Amino acid sequence: MLIVQKFGGSSVANPEKVRRVAGIIADAFSEGHSLVVVLSAQGDTTDDLLEQAALYNPHPSKRELDMLLSTGEQISVALMAMALENMGLPVVSLTGWQIGMQTDSNYGGARIKRVSAERLRQELDKRRIVLVAGFQGINKYEDITTLGRGGSDTTAVAIAAALHADKCQIFTDVEGVYTADPRKVRGARKLDQITFDEMLELATLGAQVLHNRSVEMAKRYSVHLEVLSSYVRKPGTIVKEVVKKVEQMKITGIAKDTNVTRIAVVGLPDEPGKAFRVLTILGREKINVDLILQSVGKGDSNDLSFTVNSADADAAVRAIEECRDAIGFDRVSVDSDVAKISIVGAGMLSTPGVAALMFEALADAKINVKMISSSEIKLSVLIDAQYADLAVQHVHDKFFGT
Amino acid sequence: MLIVQKFGGSSVANPEKVRRVAGIIADAFSEGHSLVVVLSAQGDTTDDLLEQAALYNPHPSKRELDMLLSTGEQISVALMAMALENMGLPVVSLTGWQIGMQTDSNYGGARIKRVSAERLRQELDKRRIVLVAGFQGINKYEDITTLGRGGSDTTAVAIAAALHADKCQIFTDVEGVYTADPRKVRGARKLDQITFDEMLELATLGAQVLHNRSVEMAKRYSVHLEVLSSYVRKPGTIVKEVVKKVEQMKITGIAKDTNVTRIAVVGLPDEPGKAFRVLTILGREKINVDLILQSVGKGDSNDLSFTVNSADADAAVRAIEECRDAIGFDRVSVDSDVAKISIVGAGMLSTPGVAALMFEALADAKINVKMISSSEIKLSVLIDAQYADLAVQHVHDKFFGT
Repeated sequence: MLIVQKFGGSSVANPEKVRRVAGIIADAFSEGHSLVVVLSAQGDTTDDLLEQAALYNPHPSKRELDMLLSTGEQISVALMAMALENMGLPVVSLTGWQIGMQTDSNYGGARIKRVSAERLRQELDKRRIVLVAGFQGINKYEDITTLGRGGSDTTAVAIAAALHADKCQIFTDVEGVYTADPRKVRGARKLDQITFDEMLELATLGAQVLHNRSVEMAKRYSVHLEVLSSYVRKPGTIVKEVVKKVEQMKITGIAKDTNVTRIAVVGLPDEPGKAFRVLTILGREKINVDLILQSVGKGDSNDLSFTVNSADADAAVRAIEECRDAIGFDRVSVDSDVAKISIVGAGMLSTPGVAALMFEALADAKINVKMISSSEIKLSVLIDAQYADLAVQHVHDKFFGT
Repeated sequence: MLIVQKFGGSSVANPEKVRRVAGIIADAFSEGHSLVVVLSAQGDTTDDLLEQAALYNPHPSKRELDMLLSTGEQISVALMAMALENMGLPVVSLTGWQIGMQTDSNYGGARIKRVSAERLRQELDKRRIVLVAGFQGINKYEDITTLGRGGSDTTAVAIAAALHADKCQIFTDVEGVYTADPRKVRGARKLDQITFDEMLELATLGAQVLHNRSVEMAKRYSVHLEVLSSYVRKPGTIVKEVVKKVEQMKITGIAKDTNVTRIAVVGLPDEPGKAFRVLTILGREKINVDLILQSVGKGDSNDLSFTVNSADADAAVRAIEECRDAIGFDRVSVDSDVAKISIVGAGMLSTPGVAALMFEALADAKINVKMISSSEIKLSVLIDAQYADLAVQHVHDKFFGT
């Protein structure tokens, strides 16, 4: 089999951990598989480099930042190559530009356009274990780019797609995808299988196992994806298009996202299209709006509330304030002390009673719901941040038993 | 003017030093010059990376070592770019592969084959300060190579040659080339000018200002080379083909090399060609032999003594011992407690009395001479290592006064 494996930064943080991962790679190689292994930068390397940068320039250009940060993964693959050489294994390490990882020019958050499989195939044909620096590519100017958060997962999936690999294994510090965060929720269970769509919702909603860009890409190119542990050698969670539900589970999992801010535009004129204009402004600034609530205020004015990723909150407020005269409103209020709790599951909303169960659980815990939103496979509520963990535990208990 | 500048690792070791160097670059740029600036890795970065490597593999492959080490210079140029951006200057940093620095495949000590000037010219045409990671290139397989000791000097000279630059300035922590090591020899004087050939002898002989590969390349391509201080802003030493001797100096400088080992093959049969065979063996092993002395032993046997670089001593002895039966000799003796002291100067040996002055100085200091050798522009003697500094001071006093 041709397998693409990916190990994150914490799995290769020091010589001991690198040797553990080298053991996993060696075992798969000795079983006769062809291997491409994607690595992130070791441990805190990326943060250390960012700290370094700040000493030279508080606002470095993204182009130079990518030049700097991409060294982290290059160091990581070189050291892993040395560890595998030390075990007598044939190995070669490659950077993003060496494997022809072509991206657009959006430094710091570049999107992959094409992976040239040529060099990778050459090395695999020589029966070498091929180590690839994740998170990085080059643009059409031959400048180094980085892919942003979850970049190494995306690198692995893109390579698996380009090589038509049999499997893409994402090794993490958890044993797979769980019904909820197992470090925080009692009774959280590992899922054997999950659909791409469910995984996408969980990833987007802050489950932090797989980044949604990698899941989207896996879905688009039908990459057989598996999430498993780099510490415990047992099967993880398989992510695929259609999943047989082995248990009678009403939902697949529960996610919590505290990285969310609620913005309210208060006192909008009660005229058609005013709310729409606020959202248009945010769209122009490329700010994603999630939950939306339009409420009737006093007299002839309305309020519009919505949530954005907390990182975008300042930019969102600035953009709206700049258009105060054109739109006309009283004030903008901001609340970052909120959390979004979501239940996810294919066909969930068509199952009677699922929504009711969730609200029952929240009511039992006396937790107030501020906003609600739903899609085909998820149901999200916004609550006070302080009750987030309590809410997840109660909802989990309700659906999966204590 | 188009100027190539090069700053070594100690000149860019921390934010404060980087800002100082950025100031030098900014001044040259504001004077209207086009600038390509070559940087080494910061301070101890390379040693730190080597220590890291040792934790994973005591004998890593040179290919992976180059993959690892080349990150040092990449980090260095990215941080310098950020510092210059912070001063509002237009700047771009580039790696070895980005400027098309083609080398052979001798990892760890690659030789430059070609520099593609295209990208460099593009960036200069945009009126950007171009920062280039020194010490690194790529081979025909598109793998990263490093150039070995003095690699960043060589990078700078190669770029100056490819771009037909008006000047190549090598900034160091000394103010130029001296008649002897100014940190050790009282009365050592800075030279305003020196010929390529003299500089080559001084570099080879351990003066440690410029690596001989960079001087050879500068000579071959007639690059106008200048050695100057990154701390003191005043003219340094110009290295060129022909130099006007402004003073009546009999010699240009004095060099000391303690990194030398004397090997004696004792009891060689007194037959034609035996000594020659020993030297042939070393040639086959690519070991350079420097001073050579053939002496008549007792009875029908001879001794052959010669010096090699200390790094090659073990390999030399092994190669000779392996041919003991074929050649026939009593034993090999090794002495690494020696130093080579050389005086250098164009046309020196044709000046009457120069050799006499040197031996007079050594005799005054009661230092025994073990071996002697000379070329057109140098005269070297081998002495006990413990007297090396004393010898240099006495010889310097003799030629340059106290």
